[in-house]
Amino acid sequence: MKPLILALPENGSFSKILATHLDAEIGIIELRKFPDGETYVRIDTELENRSVVLVATLAEPDDKILPLIFAAATARDLGATNVGFVVPYLAYMRQDRRFKAGEGVTSTYFAAILNRWIDWLVTVDPHLHRWTSLQEIYTMPSEVVHAAPLISSWIKENVSRPLLIGPDIESEQWVSHVAQEAGAPYLVLEKIRKGDRDVEVSIPDVDAWRDRTPVLVDDIISTARTMIETVGHLMQAELRSPICIGVHGIFAGDAYDNLLASGAERVVTCNTVPHSSNMIDVSGLLSDSIKQRGFGQD
Amino acid sequence: MKPLILALPENGSFSKILATHLDAEIGIIELRKFPDGETYVRIDTELENRSVVLVATLAEPDDKILPLIFAAATARDLGATNVGFVVPYLAYMRQDRRFKAGEGVTSTYFAAILNRWIDWLVTVDPHLHRWTSLQEIYTMPSEVVHAAPLISSWIKENVSRPLLIGPDIESEQWVSHVAQEAGAPYLVLEKIRKGDRDVEVSIPDVDAWRDRTPVLVDDIISTARTMIETVGHLMQAELRSPICIGVHGIFAGDAYDNLLASGAERVVTCNTVPHSSNMIDVSGLLSDSIKQRGFGQD
Repeated sequence: MKPLILALPENGSFSKILATHLDAEIGIIELRKFPDGETYVRIDTELENRSVVLVATLAEPDDKILPLIFAAATARDLGATNVGFVVPYLAYMRQDRRFKAGEGVTSTYFAAILNRWIDWLVTVDPHLHRWTSLQEIYTMPSEVVHAAPLISSWIKENVSRPLLIGPDIESEQWVSHVAQEAGAPYLVLEKIRKGDRDVEVSIPDVDAWRDRTPVLVDDIISTARTMIETVGHLMQAELRSPICIGVHGIFAGDAYDNLLASGAERVVTCNTVPHSSNMIDVSGLLSDSIKQRGFGQD
Repeated sequence: MKPLILALPENGSFSKILATHLDAEIGIIELRKFPDGETYVRIDTELENRSVVLVATLAEPDDKILPLIFAAATARDLGATNVGFVVPYLAYMRQDRRFKAGEGVTSTYFAAILNRWIDWLVTVDPHLHRWTSLQEIYTMPSEVVHAAPLISSWIKENVSRPLLIGPDIESEQWVSHVAQEAGAPYLVLEKIRKGDRDVEVSIPDVDAWRDRTPVLVDDIISTARTMIETVGHLMQAELRSPICIGVHGIFAGDAYDNLLASGAERVVTCNTVPHSSNMIDVSGLLSDSIKQRGFGQD
């Protein structure tokens, strides 16, 4: 039988594209709040002996977790054989150790919550830094897909004479990879610290790049602080207005407007978090990975 | 060693009174949101080998559950021997069966979440209807305390010539009990159904009660719809403006103002959910119960 997709609120459009790729059915789920703020859930599709795929991106995660768990538990109660989770943006990956005494390592707690209710998980570029793999904290079967090839393709098709920019030395590996796939040169900014708060940025061979369109790429654009700083350095060096690409456009507060105001020519994101800047569709990557792993197959 | 109380946001005042009753220490917990909406937690008090008591009421519960779980998990990570939970208002007790095919029985799922992270629990008058005891869904040791004696005392001290009112026949047992303790008469309204939407309410011997102050009591005032209706019936019968007492004042939207506007002379609640109507302090009940059960004792 076809797997059954249940879209959590605001994930309807993404689920429809995913269902087409997966040849899955879309089930009817009602999720709403009672006047007292509690969540009500009802699944109006027969679930007996079916594989269920929940779809929910987790930007601003805190009030999404109960609806998600309730949907998973209800599906199981109603006879679903397994409950998977397509989560284009996975939250709580950043607090990956105790940076300061007394802190909670929320990445592990959040994973433990999901491990209890979900059978498998597929996501796009989780913020893996000190954790080197999702499996270190997610005990369920999981798969990570990478947006880099899609970003390279988008640059190739949409930017003439691009110049990939790495904001610092740590970004070199990632930026060089995207640049190579896009058939474009890349540049890594060198920070020269002149004092506690006085950081100068040197752009090597700057004159060679004036006819190029700089392209900044990062995994998450949240406050956009780092990107806004980098745009500032490029403007100071009198390079062209850059294009800013994020895999996940969280855009906390006015981050999107601030980034455009800082001098970015354009801001482009993948559709892992619904936003007007979504230009790169990751649903095909996710469905390929689900099919390859045989997730949701009876 | 003294048990250590950790107050979740908005539970600081209540925790202070509770700490005095329990002779407990109050620990320092920092809970805040990152710009992207994720929760940060840090406990700045030594927890090694200590008993921790989390204090959090759960009105509007959905975005409170991750901070609560993170606080519990962090306390355990930092060496707490056990993590208890004082929850003056316990959420998700109302969906206690599948009223309609496909519904999730959220009371059981919510209990399962807490069972995973919390070692014991004490609460005030949870909405037990089809569940007859908290133990049916909460597997951890738990204790329920009842506000009825405090409500009776409050009525005795603050209302001259009270008349307890039960809105319907199901409320008789509870209302008669509060009335007896308060040394007051009580009255149960009789609904006479004249058609699908035409319900008349008869008040037996109405003339005998005109010099009394009606007192309505309910466990939860959420939308206040039932109470507003009952106030309406009393006003129609030309009884005095009633006093409305709720154990838990949730007051969804404009419920509090609407209840006053409907003709209630005054609205009074217990301090299980912080609100300007709080007049009845339940912290002593909770601390007595904690001490009696030996919760949080090493």
